Amino acid sequence: MPDFVPELMREYGDAARAVLFRYLPSEEPRRHLYDLLADYPRRGGRGFRPTLCIATARAFGRTTEDALRTAASIELLHNAMLVHDDIEDESIERRGRPALHVTQGVPLALNAGDALSLRSLRPLLDNQQRLGPWLSLRILEEAERMARESAEGQAMELGWRRDNAVDVTEADYLLMVLKKTCWLAVIYPTRVGALIGTGGAVDLEPFLRFGFFVGAAFQIQDDLLNLTGDQAQYGKELEGDLYEGKRTIMLVRLLAKARRSERERLERLLGRPRGERTAAEIRWARGLMDRYGCIDYARSVAHGLVGAAEHEFSRIFGHLPDSRDKRFLAAFPRWVIERS
Amino acid sequence: MPDFVPELMREYGDAARAVLFRYLPSEEPRRHLYDLLADYPRRGGRGFRPTLCIATARAFGRTTEDALRTAASIELLHNAMLVHDDIEDESIERRGRPALHVTQGVPLALNAGDALSLRSLRPLLDNQQRLGPWLSLRILEEAERMARESAEGQAMELGWRRDNAVDVTEADYLLMVLKKTCWLAVIYPTRVGALIGTGGAVDLEPFLRFGFFVGAAFQIQDDLLNLTGDQAQYGKELEGDLYEGKRTIMLVRLLAKARRSERERLERLLGRPRGERTAAEIRWARGLMDRYGCIDYARSVAHGLVGAAEHEFSRIFGHLPDSRDKRFLAAFPRWVIERS
Repeated sequence: MPDFVPELMREYGDAARAVLFRYLPSEEPRRHLYDLLADYPRRGGRGFRPTLCIATARAFGRTTEDALRTAASIELLHNAMLVHDDIEDESIERRGRPALHVTQGVPLALNAGDALSLRSLRPLLDNQQRLGPWLSLRILEEAERMARESAEGQAMELGWRRDNAVDVTEADYLLMVLKKTCWLAVIYPTRVGALIGTGGAVDLEPFLRFGFFVGAAFQIQDDLLNLTGDQAQYGKELEGDLYEGKRTIMLVRLLAKARRSERERLERLLGRPRGERTAAEIRWARGLMDRYGCIDYARSVAHGLVGAAEHEFSRIFGHLPDSRDKRFLAAFPRWVIERS
Repeated sequence: MPDFVPELMREYGDAARAVLFRYLPSEEPRRHLYDLLADYPRRGGRGFRPTLCIATARAFGRTTEDALRTAASIELLHNAMLVHDDIEDESIERRGRPALHVTQGVPLALNAGDALSLRSLRPLLDNQQRLGPWLSLRILEEAERMARESAEGQAMELGWRRDNAVDVTEADYLLMVLKKTCWLAVIYPTRVGALIGTGGAVDLEPFLRFGFFVGAAFQIQDDLLNLTGDQAQYGKELEGDLYEGKRTIMLVRLLAKARRSERERLERLLGRPRGERTAAEIRWARGLMDRYGCIDYARSVAHGLVGAAEHEFSRIFGHLPDSRDKRFLAAFPRWVIERS
């Protein structure tokens, strides 16, 4: 894997994070609000969402500075969503440390997530100075669309868990991922990057496909790492998804392939509250996934998605002059499934 | 109390609500998202926030239609905040029915609150057509400021409860109310109403004072009704604030006035989880408030605030021609403390 993918992410990610921190006030109430807002951003993160925004704007011929506030806003909103996701999923770890609601309690963490989410509007409003009112408003419209798609995807996934749905199809799963993951992770960053890069003169439709293919591959790889990755590198509890009853493509596949008795045992396991799922049962479910080839199947789907993304890449970016940014965007889909 | 205050609120509130519902899609995922978004708005509400916005815009000479999308956005955001507040406060009732997280579970209710909050941006973006890009962006900036103030106020209050603060002063309390209540309830609606009404040519500073005086009186009256009101009319559990350990002005006063032994018993009571506060203990604390004149004291503070608000009213609106809207704004502060 070429080194320049993580290199560019570090470079652009750091630039966006520097702007992000300028938008987090260090004033009162500090201990109950502003320290909490800065907590997840301070823990790091790969910064690939802001990088996709900046690289797209640059590939289309604009500067880093033109995209920097938008990139910072994306990272702010991403962190805001992590705070609320962790509450909703009852996750206990994030980036290798206890989740915010674990250290601060649900009420203050929930409120901090709200503050972070609405704080992400501020850099988009400040875009006016550099990008003018029309383009600033177009970007805000994209942000609103993305937030809507994300909430729809999150509702689908949480609804499946709450109602212990065991009839989720692969098509349901991919629609959920399109909304929940792809919009914030890839579609929105590249769409607003392209708006900035072209001054608004671009067809945004193909970005939906590119972003879906890359984003879905990313989600599948993330879920694979949760089952097969290295605890220290991963930053969340391994097999946490199984404890949370998360409908991953591996679980969806397993529910479709398992024998009836196994499926019923899985349903009972998934129907119990998180705390009542034992390590032995989780191991049993994990073993079943191996037996039915669910891990390999997920890998092959992710590979197929990356191929489709590379095809879309050439349709969107192929005509643009060669640049480091263009090369990054070309290599990014494959990086997504080869990272560990 | 003149009937025209509730009458105008019904008229403008209904108009804003009709627009609000146009912004709530009736599409999938319905059962896990869009039905939840519409739940609190369908339960009604007095609609005084959108009314303040429309009446202010009209008092300055613009039409209802000019302010309608902004008014709908205010009501959307207000409902979004109620959903999250109810989770944070562990409230069990809202507008006479079970709170959303009680019927749907915390994860889906939290997500619905997020969706509702970001959905409130859409009408503000649609303002462009009628108000142009500059004024639309100014209103979005006010929305961002208001959201920030609200989150700060909420953090203060939740922090006091989590840490069982018993040294909250009246000044702390009023700063918290300025941020948590006044911005969304009065300051923001009248400020954006004035922006719309004048096309942006207005000094917004005095609205801060007017909104603080009215909003603080409103909050104190709300807390008084929680202790002294009629269950059927009130729509939340009576004495719920005491069960929740909410720092009201009555409690702040009581903590300042009580004897040391009483204060220590109060501290222990407030330090226990909500479920472990018994009805007998709540009655004891409630009786102590009567003994130390905390209810009467709160009433007198609210009266003082209304007087100050009426003074600010004449400085802001006094020079404007007589209208039903101006008369509403003049009568509103007193209505706030005379309603039941």
